[in-house]
Order: sequence, then C-alpha cells, then structure tokens
Amino acid sequence: AVLEAIRRRMVGGGALSGKHVIVTAGPTHEPIDPVRYIANRSSGRQGFEIAGALAAIGAEVTLVAGPVALPTPAGVRRVDVETALEMAEAVEQALPADAAVMVAAVADWRAEPSATKIKKGGDGAPPPLRLVENPDILAGLAAAKKRPGLVVGFAAETNDVLDHATAKRARKGCDWIVANDVSGDVMGGSDNTVHLVTDAGVESWERLPKPMVAARLAQRIAEALGGLKT
Amino acid sequence: AVLEAIRRRMVGGGALSGKHVIVTAGPTHEPIDPVRYIANRSSGRQGFEIAGALAAIGAEVTLVAGPVALPTPAGVRRVDVETALEMAEAVEQALPADAAVMVAAVADWRAEPSATKIKKGGDGAPPPLRLVENPDILAGLAAAKKRPGLVVGFAAETNDVLDHATAKRARKGCDWIVANDVSGDVMGGSDNTVHLVTDAGVESWERLPKPMVAARLAQRIAEALGGLKT
Repeated sequence: AVLEAIRRRMVGGGALSGKHVIVTAGPTHEPIDPVRYIANRSSGRQGFEIAGALAAIGAEVTLVAGPVALPTPAGVRRVDVETALEMAEAVEQALPADAAVMVAAVADWRAEPSATKIKKGGDGAPPPLRLVENPDILAGLAAAKKRPGLVVGFAAETNDVLDHATAKRARKGCDWIVANDVSGDVMGGSDNTVHLVTDAGVESWERLPKPMVAARLAQRIAEALGGLKT
Repeated sequence: AVLEAIRRRMVGGGALSGKHVIVTAGPTHEPIDPVRYIANRSSGRQGFEIAGALAAIGAEVTLVAGPVALPTPAGVRRVDVETALEMAEAVEQALPADAAVMVAAVADWRAEPSATKIKKGGDGAPPPLRLVENPDILAGLAAAKKRPGLVVGFAAETNDVLDHATAKRARKGCDWIVANDVSGDVMGGSDNTVHLVTDAGVESWERLPKPMVAARLAQRIAEALGGLKT
C-alpha cells in the first residue's frame, strides 16, 4: 500500500491530487476524573479506511483521530486527540480544506472533570455527574467562514435511518450524510450498510466491507470535487 | 515463556504447585446506552504480569480480565468480562481458591443503561445520568463463605498513600493491600512504586518495572501459602 501510494504520487496521478481533505475518526474520551472517562464503541476503522482511500487517489489527508489503536494509513497526516474539544480544535487548525469527512463518533456531552479521583462517600451514594454539551463539530464546520466546499457527516442509526439522516443533513447544514444502518449490529463490525443522502436524494449501497465503502465514498468525493469524469 | 512454564510443571516444581489463585485485571466498562460507556484508564498490565508470575512458579491461575487488548500469559486460564457485575460473577464462579489477587480497577458505579441510543434533546440539555453503586468485589470476597485463605487488594493512590491503604485494608477485610503510589503518574506507565501493607506492617519496595513487582509479589504469596521457605 505504501509503494502504491508513492507510485500514484510520482506519476502525478490520482483524482484528488492537490486536494486537502480532513477526516475525523474514532471515539472521543471525556474525562470524569484522573482515572475515569466516558467513551463510546466507535472502532475508528471506517474513518481510517476512508482516510486511506482518499490518500490512495492522491488527496492530501489530515486524519484527526480519537483514541484508537489503529495504524496510520499510508500517506496520511495523523493528529491524535482524546476529547471532543481537542478534536474541534484540531479540525479548525487543519483548515483550509477542499472537503471534510466527519466520521468520528464525537461525544455529545462531557463531564465537568474532577482534578482528584472521586471517592465513594461513606453512605455509598454516587456523586452527581454533571454533563455539559460538547460543541457540534460538524455543524460548526458547516457554518464556518473557512467552510470546506464539501462537508460530509456520518449518522449511525438503529431505526428510521433515512428519516433521521435526512433530518440530520438539514439540521447540520452539511452537504452529504452517510447514513449507517446499525440496526441489529452495533458499531465495530467489518461491514457497513450505507445510504448516501445528498441534495439529489438518496443512494442506497449494498452491504459492503468497510474498505469498499471507503473506496466508493472516496470515488464520489473525487467526482464532486471535479477531479473525475462521472 | 511457554516452554519455561511447561518445563516447571513437568518437573513438578514451582512453589505454588497445586495452588489455585484468582487474579482480576484491567478496567471495567459500564454501558450508558448501546454505544456509550463509562471506562477507566487501567491498562491491565500489572494484573496480567502477576497472573503470569504466579503461573510461572506453578500456580493454577484464573485470570478474570476486563476489556483490554493484552495477550494471555502462558499457562493462565483467562475469563473475559466487561462490567463489574460480570467480574463479580466470574470471580464467584472461579471459587474455591487458595488466594485471590484483585488488581482490576473495578468501576465503583454503573449507569442505569438505556436500551436505545440517547438522543440530544431539542434544547441541548443533557439527560440525567443516574448512577448505581456496583458490588464491592474485594470486600465481598473477603467476607465470603468460600473466602480464599489469602485475599490481596490493590489501591492506587495519589496522596496519603499509606494512610489510605491501611484504612482500605481494614475496611475491605482483606489480608494484604498492595498500595500503588500513582502521584505524578496516572496508571498506564511501565513501573510501579509499591508498598505492601500486611498485618505485620508496611514493606516499601523501590520503584520497579511491573514484571518485577509481579515476580516479587508472587514470591511473597508463595511464602504466605507455605510453599517456600522464607
């Protein structure tokens, strides 16, 4: 894969040559105290595959990755973050970009963290866990002054997938939503059943391995950025 | 290491030959909903090293492991669990035992989990996160009818290490506390600074790599169980 990426770059090929794409991937971890945190089950694999697929067709890729133990795809610049606030900051630092693909499962809320380890009270009563809403990275980017020309969001849904995804696209102000039907199969598997929601409507893809979802999405992004004949 | 373990068993050697020891290791994950959970930063490495060190001197070891990506030490029977409730159940199932070394960083609280993914409300207000106290596995085991002859707890402390450890030993009803001084260095590093708190007082060990802490603790357990001349 390394040689392939080098070869593509050397021949100047690649439909996304000269384009900068930001990809976010993985979960975020939100500290409760120095030892505890809130996490989510995102494996990061779909986002890492997308970053690699974009790089393989010539894009300059900045991958903003939450805490996952995955190797960096060939040709990708990786920025590791832990929390949603750090991810928001890293995305802003990575601008300007021609496109952004926000695959990360960003925590909606963070705790107001305690500087010392929270101890159980004598009465065994759990401490109140105060939650604070995190910034909405996707909506923020879609409304930003330096907004990338193409902003793609992801939605993992268990029910009413297309309704939720269409509503999310409007609410977030992004161009596309990749709706991931996770009914009967929470995040972390090797395949995805995906619907691409754009202003032209809905494209439903057959159930595919994550690398093939990534390759097809990279291809569609190249078409949208004008680098490929459709 | 595999060959070494086999050889020790074949020659019938090993100070802990014929003894069953339960070891817990790693964090627990407590689900909030199908995608979110509360976790902690335990790497599981100290507990895995202890399980391996006990097996290497002949013990039959049951390692009850929270969610970590670590290889199973040679000669160890591993039971994987996710939550504190599952860990408590697995420890009970593993009884009877001659000794138990409870290294896992068990979550003090669990959330009352939601069956469906919690959505942000229209007003952005975070949902209340109701916490319920988890069973105290160490105290429960120390008070159990089938109590192992030697029950060892761990305490990671950032301040007043010996006071906290001594109080914890009395409160939990266990025989020893291995007090881990994590001031200036949260869990996850390669060394530990340890104090062994017993009814005879406190032994302070120099800062050691985790495998050496494990080997020394295994040796002390073998002495306590009468398998080694002291």
